[in-house]
Amino acid sequence: LATIQGELERVVSEIEGAPVAVAGSGRTDAGVHAAEQVAAFTFANPIPRENLRRALNRLLPRDIRVLRCDEVEEQFHPRFDAIAKSYEYTLYRWEICPPMRRLYVYHYPYPLDEEAMAEAAVLFEGEHDFSAFAASDEKDELGGSKVRTVHFSRLARDGAVLVYRVRGSGFLKHMVRMLVGTLLEVGKRNLGPEDIRARLAPGYPGKAGPSVPPGGLCLMGVEYEREMLK
Amino acid sequence: LATIQGELERVVSEIEGAPVAVAGSGRTDAGVHAAEQVAAFTFANPIPRENLRRALNRLLPRDIRVLRCDEVEEQFHPRFDAIAKSYEYTLYRWEICPPMRRLYVYHYPYPLDEEAMAEAAVLFEGEHDFSAFAASDEKDELGGSKVRTVHFSRLARDGAVLVYRVRGSGFLKHMVRMLVGTLLEVGKRNLGPEDIRARLAPGYPGKAGPSVPPGGLCLMGVEYEREMLK
Repeated sequence: LATIQGELERVVSEIEGAPVAVAGSGRTDAGVHAAEQVAAFTFANPIPRENLRRALNRLLPRDIRVLRCDEVEEQFHPRFDAIAKSYEYTLYRWEICPPMRRLYVYHYPYPLDEEAMAEAAVLFEGEHDFSAFAASDEKDELGGSKVRTVHFSRLARDGAVLVYRVRGSGFLKHMVRMLVGTLLEVGKRNLGPEDIRARLAPGYPGKAGPSVPPGGLCLMGVEYEREMLK
Repeated sequence: LATIQGELERVVSEIEGAPVAVAGSGRTDAGVHAAEQVAAFTFANPIPRENLRRALNRLLPRDIRVLRCDEVEEQFHPRFDAIAKSYEYTLYRWEICPPMRRLYVYHYPYPLDEEAMAEAAVLFEGEHDFSAFAASDEKDELGGSKVRTVHFSRLARDGAVLVYRVRGSGFLKHMVRMLVGTLLEVGKRNLGPEDIRARLAPGYPGKAGPSVPPGGLCLMGVEYEREMLK
């Protein structure tokens, strides 16, 4: 199976004429989309960055596009230097899901208490132990802590779609999909606000709720300190 | 290769419990999309039409959706009774084509005289012999005539896209893609308005211009006399 990282390494190495390793801001699960992902590599080729962008886009398959190339500090790492990430998860609510959108939404036309979901979504904001919202095989690289800060966590209806937008200091494996799965349980009135609070308390046993399919998830952006850019 | 007609026949036959033939309003080339296509079949099953729609959508692959089911006069034929069809062809003009749109647009980021194209597009309106805008293997079923009436033929820029919208009494094989290919020649200043007029004159020898790829084309709707619907 082709991966974005693999394809980038192939074309960057082709331009460099030697193997080049490419580091990303994080791996997304198969089926998850990215409107803006960040990758970095070390490169001897003196090609101007505008020309590099054009060359990369000429060599890459059309489902991967390079929007911008920038020079960064040599020690920059797109994953470990990220200070925030944003995701969107899109539920398609009307009965008939347009074929052209089917890969980018989760079609959920069944009844939901959307107001209760929107109220519950806000409860994720703040610094919490998100252990209950991590895949069981999550390997934590930050000293084992599963405490993360969620800066923004809101749900809004826009025509046919119900969009969950979340921005935080970092996300555990499957975390966004488990947050949305838990909100769906709230929408089905299987869980209430007190259940959400319990799942955010340290030491909650087990998992918060089911996950949702990857297609509705999109990485919207990764943020860094300005000083990392040259 | 799966076709829309084939998939529809498979699921309609499954519901009926016997082979059912499905007739469409016309075949589109591989890679062409349809926002609204019309198909008809004769069916003994007394299932209410709302339930039929739901059953069809449950059985069909997710890239084919049935928007509506209606009862029609028995002699109705979606192709021969069509009085007008509308198409859109979308050119993506900015340098980087968003991956999620790549299957639905023709990425053409090169310079074009869009004003000249828009002026030329209007010249297609009216009743003309479109022989120069038909695939060479076009088999004409209307007594050999390649005269068609184009009611609307306009080009408009909308942000990143240049959209050609055309509505007419009927279209020859590859006609819309050849109209757009000819407009591209106008945009590249290889053809002028007088060349368009010559290609619309009866007896024009040869073909008007190159075609464009199928992905940018979408059938937007098919119109019938109201009396055909019960």
